[in-house]
Amino acid sequence: METIPTELIITKQSWTTAGQQARLQLLENQQQITLPFLGNEQTYTDIPSLKGNIEHYIGMTQVPTGIIGEVCIEGTDANGNFFVPLATSEGALVASYHRGTVACKMAGAIRAVVVSEQVQRCPIFRFRTVVQVLAFVAWLTEEWEKCKEIVGKQSRFAKLQTPKFNIEGNQVIVTFEYTTGDAAGQNMVTVCTEAVCLYLVQQSPVEIIEWFIDGNLSGDKKVRGSAFIAPRGKYVTAEITLPRKIVIDFLRTTPEKMQTFWQTSALGAVKMGGIGMNAHFPNGLAALFLACGQDIACVSEACVGIARAEVTAEGDLYGAVTLPNLIVGTVGGGTHLPTQQECLKIMGCYGAGNSRKFAAICAAVLLAGEFSISAAMSGGYFSKAHKLYGRKK
Amino acid sequence: METIPTELIITKQSWTTAGQQARLQLLENQQQITLPFLGNEQTYTDIPSLKGNIEHYIGMTQVPTGIIGEVCIEGTDANGNFFVPLATSEGALVASYHRGTVACKMAGAIRAVVVSEQVQRCPIFRFRTVVQVLAFVAWLTEEWEKCKEIVGKQSRFAKLQTPKFNIEGNQVIVTFEYTTGDAAGQNMVTVCTEAVCLYLVQQSPVEIIEWFIDGNLSGDKKVRGSAFIAPRGKYVTAEITLPRKIVIDFLRTTPEKMQTFWQTSALGAVKMGGIGMNAHFPNGLAALFLACGQDIACVSEACVGIARAEVTAEGDLYGAVTLPNLIVGTVGGGTHLPTQQECLKIMGCYGAGNSRKFAAICAAVLLAGEFSISAAMSGGYFSKAHKLYGRKK
Amino acid sequence: METIPTELIITKQSWTTAGQQARLQLLENQQQITLPFLGNEQTYTDIPSLKGNIEHYIGMTQVPTGIIGEVCIEGTDANGNFFVPLATSEGALVASYHRGTVACKMAGAIRAVVVSEQVQRCPIFRFRTVVQVLAFVAWLTEEWEKCKEIVGKQSRFAKLQTPKFNIEGNQVIVTFEYTTGDAAGQNMVTVCTEAVCLYLVQQSPVEIIEWFIDGNLSGDKKVRGSAFIAPRGKYVTAEITLPRKIVIDFLRTTPEKMQTFWQTSALGAVKMGGIGMNAHFPNGLAALFLACGQDIACVSEACVGIARAEVTAEGDLYGAVTLPNLIVGTVGGGTHLPTQQECLKIMGCYGAGNSRKFAAICAAVLLAGEFSISAAMSGGYFSKAHKLYGRKK
Amino acid sequence: METIPTELIITKQSWTTAGQQARLQLLENQQQITLPFLGNEQTYTDIPSLKGNIEHYIGMTQVPTGIIGEVCIEGTDANGNFFVPLATSEGALVASYHRGTVACKMAGAIRAVVVSEQVQRCPIFRFRTVVQVLAFVAWLTEEWEKCKEIVGKQSRFAKLQTPKFNIEGNQVIVTFEYTTGDAAGQNMVTVCTEAVCLYLVQQSPVEIIEWFIDGNLSGDKKVRGSAFIAPRGKYVTAEITLPRKIVIDFLRTTPEKMQTFWQTSALGAVKMGGIGMNAHFPNGLAALFLACGQDIACVSEACVGIARAEVTAEGDLYGAVTLPNLIVGTVGGGTHLPTQQECLKIMGCYGAGNSRKFAAICAAVLLAGEFSISAAMSGGYFSKAHKLYGRKK
Repeated sequence: METIPTELIITKQSWTTAGQQARLQLLENQQQITLPFLGNEQTYTDIPSLKGNIEHYIGMTQVPTGIIGEVCIEGTDANGNFFVPLATSEGALVASYHRGTVACKMAGAIRAVVVSEQVQRCPIFRFRTVVQVLAFVAWLTEEWEKCKEIVGKQSRFAKLQTPKFNIEGNQVIVTFEYTTGDAAGQNMVTVCTEAVCLYLVQQSPVEIIEWFIDGNLSGDKKVRGSAFIAPRGKYVTAEITLPRKIVIDFLRTTPEKMQTFWQTSALGAVKMGGIGMNAHFPNGLAALFLACGQDIACVSEACVGIARAEVTAEGDLYGAVTLPNLIVGTVGGGTHLPTQQECLKIMGCYGAGNSRKFAAICAAVLLAGEFSISAAMSGGYFSKAHKLYGRKK
Repeated sequence: METIPTELIITKQSWTTAGQQARLQLLENQQQITLPFLGNEQTYTDIPSLKGNIEHYIGMTQVPTGIIGEVCIEGTDANGNFFVPLATSEGALVASYHRGTVACKMAGAIRAVVVSEQVQRCPIFRFRTVVQVLAFVAWLTEEWEKCKEIVGKQSRFAKLQTPKFNIEGNQVIVTFEYTTGDAAGQNMVTVCTEAVCLYLVQQSPVEIIEWFIDGNLSGDKKVRGSAFIAPRGKYVTAEITLPRKIVIDFLRTTPEKMQTFWQTSALGAVKMGGIGMNAHFPNGLAALFLACGQDIACVSEACVGIARAEVTAEGDLYGAVTLPNLIVGTVGGGTHLPTQQECLKIMGCYGAGNSRKFAAICAAVLLAGEFSISAAMSGGYFSKAHKLYGRKK
Repeated sequence: METIPTELIITKQSWTTAGQQARLQLLENQQQITLPFLGNEQTYTDIPSLKGNIEHYIGMTQVPTGIIGEVCIEGTDANGNFFVPLATSEGALVASYHRGTVACKMAGAIRAVVVSEQVQRCPIFRFRTVVQVLAFVAWLTEEWEKCKEIVGKQSRFAKLQTPKFNIEGNQVIVTFEYTTGDAAGQNMVTVCTEAVCLYLVQQSPVEIIEWFIDGNLSGDKKVRGSAFIAPRGKYVTAEITLPRKIVIDFLRTTPEKMQTFWQTSALGAVKMGGIGMNAHFPNGLAALFLACGQDIACVSEACVGIARAEVTAEGDLYGAVTLPNLIVGTVGGGTHLPTQQECLKIMGCYGAGNSRKFAAICAAVLLAGEFSISAAMSGGYFSKAHKLYGRKK
Repeated sequence: METIPTELIITKQSWTTAGQQARLQLLENQQQITLPFLGNEQTYTDIPSLKGNIEHYIGMTQVPTGIIGEVCIEGTDANGNFFVPLATSEGALVASYHRGTVACKMAGAIRAVVVSEQVQRCPIFRFRTVVQVLAFVAWLTEEWEKCKEIVGKQSRFAKLQTPKFNIEGNQVIVTFEYTTGDAAGQNMVTVCTEAVCLYLVQQSPVEIIEWFIDGNLSGDKKVRGSAFIAPRGKYVTAEITLPRKIVIDFLRTTPEKMQTFWQTSALGAVKMGGIGMNAHFPNGLAALFLACGQDIACVSEACVGIARAEVTAEGDLYGAVTLPNLIVGTVGGGTHLPTQQECLKIMGCYGAGNSRKFAAICAAVLLAGEFSISAAMSGGYFSKAHKLYGRKK
């Protein structure tokens, strides 16, 4: 098996047991892991351990999962070549993303960087007057070290940052911003923030008329126009320059057409009142999140981002993607579930110390996917690809 | 089995095989169906048939799935009591949505209505000047009947509606709007629109410099500020009034607190530059889409919507949800896959003739979910619920 | 005077009485008009006639007004060369817009087109249930011809178009869309819509619990993400191609830099969650609206729009602007006031039959202004221009 | 004259010279000022001094100006009773805002607070790779004190704050945030930022391929979804509670109707993809800006804001407005022009030390205006008011 290029193993016999086995063996060998649940050799029966992930259990929803790659990345967060699992029922999706990764690999490595990370919970406090709001804000600012202490007692991982205050008449929303280690962190920040709030409600020198644990400013599972200005989750950016020859010969379009397509898409986004600008981030992101035990409801916010395509002075094609709201974790949530765990292990991303790595891979995959679909659309063969791989209707 | 209330069967023994079996049996009896794949009695081995849903297959991602209900709905699209499957790895999600459905059932039936349905594909055409754009638009308007004919040859289901033109300098984006039967329809409208475009490019009396199959105005997997003005997919609305007593005794809050919480959330949405206004549509929607073989990447657009909570003149709580971009189908896509098919059958939603019914159920479930989380947040026990059902960290 | 090129008359002696007189004379000769109020030869004393424009009158706010041009336009709405008055207190604004018009004039004529026109008023009706909403909508659809009749009795100019219904739970917002002749039309559509509503409230077969004349969906003085999808006022687009030589020699930048600057600006707009994408539409628009008796509060909505800059295959610079919400009128409002009337007359735009012409001029002016500021920014001399023309601080 | 209540002097004889004179005398007496330009006793002839405000001068645009008040405000920024001038040609505007101020005065004083102030300029720097961006950002962070020094040499008033970096692929936009004393400050921050940029371009350890003075992230004359999260200009909030009796007897509606109207408007804003939520901020703001020599093009950004109306537990009506982007100044720009200076003096707002006071007055006026229009709309007499005060058509 070793003598066949990995590219061929990946794509050969997409829909046969032999093909599946060859791919699984490749992945197991590469990472020195076993993948019994994906390989259907082992069946999940430990239902009691599902507590914390589901209630009123009736069984396992099963979603077809394929592999793309290798995605070549260089950077401090992720570095190396990665096979990446994608779970979806949409024909052509895996093939298209794979094609993008092949084009990128021909060109070298994708540079991917996690610029920052943070998770917010934003309680709202209501008072009689704005004058009382100001008094509360002044007091809370003084108490902030105490708030950090309270957080410290609730979690080893959550680290509370500087507060922000959003005052509107007699209401104030306080942004509690945290780093949360390698967990996605939404529950962690809820628990920590509530502990602080209970203290504040008890100690506040001005009477709090009413308060709620969230005033809907955190961006939790929300698309918002402030996504780039106030990042949430990992803020990641990835880039690569594709030589002109690759764009023409392999992607069957031109750098110029790619840029024009990008420009019309960017303006289309503006015309429909969109937030962010990209061709199809949700496709790759949902498939990656699903395979890897992420909270797929977070696709709603995480898929906001910017893609860019530019012809360089040399006539090559520069591409970049930026994701300001990438809520991901490699511990907690659904990451420990059987197939999810295996999928994370395929990339060496399971467990503590891997969330930034996983975030960098997400961005690299989306960059590859943008190249692929934009090439298909600007090259005029988008529909053909869907006829080839899509379901007969 | 008949003598135990269904409510108890649903919630009892969330995490035991016995509990699972009891729930499955209840569902099988109610719908006169079998659920061998969910019940783990049968394993999927027909890999060749996955063509059209996946490439480079390595196995099945398995996601824990639970059941809520019954959701009681009255209306012409859906009518009756429905158990609803949700696939997720987020603890407390299923329990919370279930609680919402119980509160609603106590109050009677949710009224749910599919107001309209449509799917768009929006090619862009580039010319030398705006004068040529105007000539093209005039000509295309004349040719529209011919365009409908071409569509008719491509698909039995796709019905082309009136065009819309978005002119910007020497570019025009043409909105091809279709109804697509019971399929989600994105691929169908691509194929049909391309066929028309190829005709237009050949026949246009003015030279088209460049064209792309999508100018990014369709809203395909995009959140956009025009979501309510130019609906996409099913436009659904659902409502119910909860008697004051239920809100206080069962949901442990008050109608007034619910309305205040809603108001602060609505303003929070405005403050963060949000689109739509709701508490957590993506949670229920992603879980429903995943269980039922929908394109989960569409959660990105489908989760846009409005929730509303108002105290009535009688002191009760009126609630409504509206979803303008609900892309769903009950044929095609991933709907035929084993567990997905079973999940659709649980609601009597598998196959042709059921997409509006399924859309109505989606809206009803989200309404129940909004009541539940808003009660937890306004009642001050949101964090507690997550500690109870969430994973230990 | 005839032998001096108009360009020189425009720019010479910006701040002397002689310069002012020369410009006024040029304008008076060109249009065969007199401009006594601008020229300070006549003072407004007919205070009683201000009824309808102001209350609690204390005097006239006086805003410095300059002239740019000629703006050369070809098209069916406006055709010819126009001097355009701009009222502002911001130094450099007039000079910058003028420079843009000179660059365009060197290149030929701006093509400007009014694509559509409409004004909306959107009452909201509240019912007990969504079922009653549906009944009301069905009934109102039947009554629409009657509604048109009622409108016809209120106004000779207002023409009611097809209704649109926005249903959300037990509420429906009905879009009453009108054409309003050459008036901006906001008051006209209010009066007409109210007359219809009073009829509906009386005749509705289902009880209307509550209604308001506007449900905030009309976009009246609001920036909204649906601006391009649901135009309001005039929808105008204008374009021109500047030869490479003009861009380099006269605008002191390059087409490539202009395109790159445009691209970064477009992405900047996306990053800040903006609506539309342009460099400084509000500057020119506010100055034009103010000079010409338009409702300057409408700048808030009218300034939404898209600018585009592209290097052509020949290395020239294509530019276009598109304004979907241009609320303007040449009758009514402040158009008849002394200096405002004179400013409209300078362009031959005073009175009935001129609103589309005026809209086309607006777009052409904004296009010129985008070229000018983008050249200054991409050429690196933006700050210098402001030091030259701005106030000493 | 002293024995007649000021209210009557304000509203009596709106459109007579005698009424005008009475109002002017009242204002002159109250502030111990003279108002010769508003009173038409003095004509502006010092054309050379217009340099810095206009080019190619042809005369003064004259806009009818009325007076409202007194607006009663308490707070540290503004404190006392203020007559406020509004310039407009829209009938009913002044009368409506005045009515709102009367209702508020009956209820006591409006509490208005300037929460923060800042102005941004956001240059963009382009590099070969994101790796170079990171190196540049690291270096610039070290150089920040030097940047502050450079700013200090350019302006006594501009104070540079902490930088923010927005990285997207090989581009970074740097937010230069300043306080600018009592000037609106847009030109000041341009000049200062350019001086810093020229230093950076010269000294940067990594090659800057291209840079522009603005990457369109500053929000300068732009409406953006990040308006509340990243304020620009003054961030002001104002509130008051109107007793039930005043709402019913004077505003001829009810607190409940006002809240319902607010709710439908808030949802309308969401439905149209709006940014912020208010009834008609642009009306009062444009009129105030115009009368007081502000940059009226800034209405585009300054009019973004939130209004809120709530029935209190006691059955009264709480109202609040919040404006996060209020770009205003009391020195520089058009503030020194004759009538503009007089209008600022009417409120004691001319010159240094008054910009926060003026901002607080703006917010208070808009709050009054929201009450008035919302009462007219919820009370069902909006159209009637426009028929009474509007122009005959």
